[in-house]
Amino acid sequence: MKNLDIAKLRFGTTLIKKGFAKMQKGGVVMDVTNAEQAKIAEISGAVAVMALERVPADIRAHGGVARMADISKIQEIMHEVSIPVMAKARIGHFAEAQALESIGVDMIDESEVLTPADPYYHIDKRKFTVPFVCGCRNLGEAVRRIWEGAAMMRTKGEAGTGNIVEAIRHQRMVTSMIKTLKEMDSSEIEKLSETYSQSYVNSATTLTNKKITKNTIVFEEYEYVTVIKEITEILKEIKKIQRLPVVNFAAGGIATPADASIMMQLGSDGVFVGSGIFKSQDPEKRARAIVKAVTHFDEPDIIAKVSKDLGDAMHGIEIGTIPPEQMLQERGW
Amino acid sequence: MKNLDIAKLRFGTTLIKKGFAKMQKGGVVMDVTNAEQAKIAEISGAVAVMALERVPADIRAHGGVARMADISKIQEIMHEVSIPVMAKARIGHFAEAQALESIGVDMIDESEVLTPADPYYHIDKRKFTVPFVCGCRNLGEAVRRIWEGAAMMRTKGEAGTGNIVEAIRHQRMVTSMIKTLKEMDSSEIEKLSETYSQSYVNSATTLTNKKITKNTIVFEEYEYVTVIKEITEILKEIKKIQRLPVVNFAAGGIATPADASIMMQLGSDGVFVGSGIFKSQDPEKRARAIVKAVTHFDEPDIIAKVSKDLGDAMHGIEIGTIPPEQMLQERGW
Repeated sequence: MKNLDIAKLRFGTTLIKKGFAKMQKGGVVMDVTNAEQAKIAEISGAVAVMALERVPADIRAHGGVARMADISKIQEIMHEVSIPVMAKARIGHFAEAQALESIGVDMIDESEVLTPADPYYHIDKRKFTVPFVCGCRNLGEAVRRIWEGAAMMRTKGEAGTGNIVEAIRHQRMVTSMIKTLKEMDSSEIEKLSETYSQSYVNSATTLTNKKITKNTIVFEEYEYVTVIKEITEILKEIKKIQRLPVVNFAAGGIATPADASIMMQLGSDGVFVGSGIFKSQDPEKRARAIVKAVTHFDEPDIIAKVSKDLGDAMHGIEIGTIPPEQMLQERGW
Repeated sequence: MKNLDIAKLRFGTTLIKKGFAKMQKGGVVMDVTNAEQAKIAEISGAVAVMALERVPADIRAHGGVARMADISKIQEIMHEVSIPVMAKARIGHFAEAQALESIGVDMIDESEVLTPADPYYHIDKRKFTVPFVCGCRNLGEAVRRIWEGAAMMRTKGEAGTGNIVEAIRHQRMVTSMIKTLKEMDSSEIEKLSETYSQSYVNSATTLTNKKITKNTIVFEEYEYVTVIKEITEILKEIKKIQRLPVVNFAAGGIATPADASIMMQLGSDGVFVGSGIFKSQDPEKRARAIVKAVTHFDEPDIIAKVSKDLGDAMHGIEIGTIPPEQMLQERGW
């Protein structure tokens, strides 16, 4: 059997893609840049690793353009560990995503941590058999990504800062808006869907230089009327189940067991840790502690216990000191 | 037989000029600054080389005025390789173009990467026997350059950044506007042609300090009414064939095989790579990889394979950090 068939068997349908994402629930996904770090992540209890060229803190320091990691580096990590391996593609860079899918990564992160490639569109994730995770700052971004086929969401936070404040902002924005949905009737939800669809309209308006009608194609093969209708359906489902219809992780700035705990208590289904582990003094100890903290997120005595003698956390960055053009969360729309 | 006659035999008519451009289709044109780099480009499979003094990234770093390369440097490159040699002239600098034509370069790039020479007019490219390539950000720029006699177009992108986002912007702007043409009737197309001809009117207005009428000469020997008529004809042809009537390449920011692949999948006929190759860690390996990526642009497993062990890509620049006056794509109109 060819590789592609196995991939189809594993992923393929929306149901199966979302299913894979659910399997990560309650777990910690750790950023790793080489096989050695991947091994540490695995023995520390990570449910998956994110293979990338540099952790976000180093991407910030390095500057320039951040792209998909070298394929050989990702494969080196895939060969090292038995847990799932995720990898990042630039926003809108479907050719990077195709390459990642072809080597059999388990999930693709269409990530604002890399330099965006397309100023108008995110990847049409329905066209892939591999599942995608995407970042969001609010419910609008979340439903757009879910509509585009994302099987998993995560907060954007402000990656590479070791500063939890933005992840909490994004988590609160999403969950409070979900609560607000409860009191909205069908026509209000449809109106909200129209607002949330506006970013597709903006792109289409710029690109075609004309006024958009209900039947204008605004994303891939989808007419504006279809986008509104389908996003309305997603919003109605969210109203009903009072959560996102896909697994929703915390990401961006998590550096301590208490950070992991607070995100879980705020409703996250799991945690991505980027620079937080391998930019700390004792990565393995901290990795184990964060895994424990996610499992026992509502048991303060355990959070306290695993917070002992961890050595220095990553140094981190005060958000207010970051120049606006270097705010990663502003990427994507 | 004199050199000039050979040139006339090879190029001369619009048909032959466009024909030469078509021969580059599906290929990669690489920026080179000396004979040694030209040799590497040739053995790596480039269909042509672009001879210039500095790659765009170095032009940015160097600052000042960027001009046509020293003729001896271009000739040194012409003597080194058997593939076609292109060279850059400043926007509007027809004397540089004449000099380049006289030494027998195979194509001239009237390029925004060099410092523009004429604030009012691009070169009247019909007056030359050598074919020209020009950059564009949108369909308006494309049809103006084609009307002026360009035999080949390319996206402007943002040269020297190693950042693909602007090339994708320009490619999407052109292709979506071509789709929009489909739904336009003759009178709407004529109106669009009037809009697209406006930049000639602006120049003529500034220069004559009077109101332009239909019979005012607005570019070389052409009356405004003729410009509108001929640009309408070009737009009608584009509407019919649903693509530009000349070969259209991607340029500006291509740094990886996946970058080349995404541009080809978005409809480019080939790829120019500037700083992306000789500002990377292993130019020859990357050059070969990008050539393969252009040939097999829709085969993700090959894109993945050639994306292995390439060493560091060029460092690159985040577009948001470039001061507005240093945006090369803003040059030309």
